Amino acid sequence: MTLNPKRAVAELKELRTLTSDANGAQRVAWTDTWLQAREWFAQKLTGLPVEHHYDVAGNNWVTLAGQSEKSLLIGGHLDSVPNGGWLDGSLNVLAGLEIVRRISEEFNGRPPVTIRLVDWADEEGARFGRSLLGSSAFAGTSSIAADRVRTDRDGVRLEDALRRCGVEIDRFSEATREQKNAAAYIELHIEQGPVLERMGLPLATVLGTKGVERHAVTFHGQEAHSGSTPMNARRDALAATAKLALEIRAIAGKHADAVCTMGSVKTFPGIVTAVVGRCEATLDQRDLDPTVLATMFREAREASECFAREERCTVEWSRIWSIEPIAFDPALLDLCDQAIREVAQTTHRMPSGPLHDAAEVSRAGIPTVMMFVQSVGGISHNKIEDTREEHLESAVTAFDKLASKTIGYLR
Amino acid sequence: MTLNPKRAVAELKELRTLTSDANGAQRVAWTDTWLQAREWFAQKLTGLPVEHHYDVAGNNWVTLAGQSEKSLLIGGHLDSVPNGGWLDGSLNVLAGLEIVRRISEEFNGRPPVTIRLVDWADEEGARFGRSLLGSSAFAGTSSIAADRVRTDRDGVRLEDALRRCGVEIDRFSEATREQKNAAAYIELHIEQGPVLERMGLPLATVLGTKGVERHAVTFHGQEAHSGSTPMNARRDALAATAKLALEIRAIAGKHADAVCTMGSVKTFPGIVTAVVGRCEATLDQRDLDPTVLATMFREAREASECFAREERCTVEWSRIWSIEPIAFDPALLDLCDQAIREVAQTTHRMPSGPLHDAAEVSRAGIPTVMMFVQSVGGISHNKIEDTREEHLESAVTAFDKLASKTIGYLR
Repeated sequence: MTLNPKRAVAELKELRTLTSDANGAQRVAWTDTWLQAREWFAQKLTGLPVEHHYDVAGNNWVTLAGQSEKSLLIGGHLDSVPNGGWLDGSLNVLAGLEIVRRISEEFNGRPPVTIRLVDWADEEGARFGRSLLGSSAFAGTSSIAADRVRTDRDGVRLEDALRRCGVEIDRFSEATREQKNAAAYIELHIEQGPVLERMGLPLATVLGTKGVERHAVTFHGQEAHSGSTPMNARRDALAATAKLALEIRAIAGKHADAVCTMGSVKTFPGIVTAVVGRCEATLDQRDLDPTVLATMFREAREASECFAREERCTVEWSRIWSIEPIAFDPALLDLCDQAIREVAQTTHRMPSGPLHDAAEVSRAGIPTVMMFVQSVGGISHNKIEDTREEHLESAVTAFDKLASKTIGYLR
Repeated sequence: MTLNPKRAVAELKELRTLTSDANGAQRVAWTDTWLQAREWFAQKLTGLPVEHHYDVAGNNWVTLAGQSEKSLLIGGHLDSVPNGGWLDGSLNVLAGLEIVRRISEEFNGRPPVTIRLVDWADEEGARFGRSLLGSSAFAGTSSIAADRVRTDRDGVRLEDALRRCGVEIDRFSEATREQKNAAAYIELHIEQGPVLERMGLPLATVLGTKGVERHAVTFHGQEAHSGSTPMNARRDALAATAKLALEIRAIAGKHADAVCTMGSVKTFPGIVTAVVGRCEATLDQRDLDPTVLATMFREAREASECFAREERCTVEWSRIWSIEPIAFDPALLDLCDQAIREVAQTTHRMPSGPLHDAAEVSRAGIPTVMMFVQSVGGISHNKIEDTREEHLESAVTAFDKLASKTIGYLR
């Protein structure tokens, strides 16, 4: 039993040195820096009794064959957002590598079940705006027709960027072959939020990923001169938007873990001397419970229509994107709780607001669970993203215990 | 007595044909189209016993010498905003021309007092962002140091654009010479708002121009992930802004004619998946009563600080621009009321939200009044700006009566 959490932390730092600049991590999928990170990772496998290959969607599979073909999958992603942090995605991969080493040593290269570590391709979707690209191909939920024509800021097509990395989008559907014998999936991730820090806890069991309703909401009023238009003669699209910006907090507040966010407001004509004639806002609503999510969406829509009437405006809604809530596996949730308690005495269960590859794996019908480790200040997708080193080490230890318990559960 | 209001309307249409395109009037000051409008106007003076010259600030003075040097000034401006309307400014000038014709004929070219029609240069400030340029030079309130370095969208300096039209900004202070013998100033203008249309009245006496407090208000909160940040952990700069956007309506609502407008809101980072970390808004507050204006400003500022505290944000204020309220002359207000009653039976007194050259003339200590005529839909600074023809004709007639009454008052 030679699990060495400090080695995982040291390797994370090594990767950071290799693939970051003054603005943070630059391991954006399908770029040279990302390929460099993957090459670095491949070298780390030297001497381990594993087979590794890239599947047709660019996911990197590292397999330690066991006595049974039944497989425990451990996942993460080496890709980052531009100017990203050192932990988001990479912690999962390098904790997984350390666990593969420990298991290989403990079972002399032949554990009771097969262990497969996967580095998913393009979790972030930072370059083409399509997140979970590799894991959705694995799950058979990819959307090739819509995705192939996506372009990056320089006009490069997704299809062409993938081809340059040896990946043919037309073969994506073959990635589902990797599901064969998959019996469980576990993923460790930084929380990317402030909950655990506020609770004073290092680790949590993740209940699932919240469903998302994401909409553009546009109020139409009447542009008018700010000096000559009496208050009672106005049809102020900003006023209707402001009411909605405040009301969504009451709507979310009725449910424990629900969130509603107005992240963008644009005013037209948007000048100091004119009443706002048109106001474009975005609304992002999330909850783990599909009923709660549907209720929040309906309530926000009804509220917007009420505010439009009050302000003599009209309102239009247009869906930007949505995904249903994904609940993780009850048996694995229990194992994750046990693993955390053995390391940190106390545990906590919470939903994940951000999406993760685990959601796609769960959609494929594979029993799944995630473990969260505390984030300093709740900050992520930023070069200052951080987690205290003792928490990182506890996370590797607890995640290793989860792997052991899951192997025991599968055998 | 040959006042011909229909001729004034016909000449307005002639000017529109000459200086508009499919997007509206293009008589932007210091451009060729504006110079063309002024040349067209100069030709209209042919045969009238008037002297005319451009002063050092580019204002065009048309003088019908009277038995007394004491002068009644009648003002307007031929310049327009880009894609502007046919009436804003030009109605004043062409109604004034018609009145000069009538007075000249009635008094055989020698009225009891001197009549001076002025076409102010660059009322709109559309090209360089400095409105009331010519009238402020006349009033001695110009700001040469700040203005000379202003540039238009193409980088042309104000100073150079004026020089091209024969105007030297360094001589602006000499424009105050035109104040000599000025005893009263009257100006006719379209309302540019919906008040008279709503009241079913064609004409109004203008009490003065409202003072303006114009500020940039920026709330600073904390950018955070929309999925992972619980509602109660947020420092949402948009929420604080939304509260202020609604509160300014209550602040204005305490006073009859006061207006408060949030015309622009910008969110940062302004993406669907992030709580707004910084929100930049503009606030424009106007009232005719300086005490009311000061109270509204103080209340808005205090409210913003309260909302910042509630949302755990901070708030900064930065003054964009301000001007004090200008009240017009009480004796001239009465004459204006009388003139309107003789044409339209009933009159109304109202402040002007937009600024006008009359405000600068009043600041120079010259007794001043303005008359408003109804605007269709309250719309101005737009190619669809319009006033019903019978209202235009009534306006010319009532404005002529105001001129006669003012002459009687001065002699």
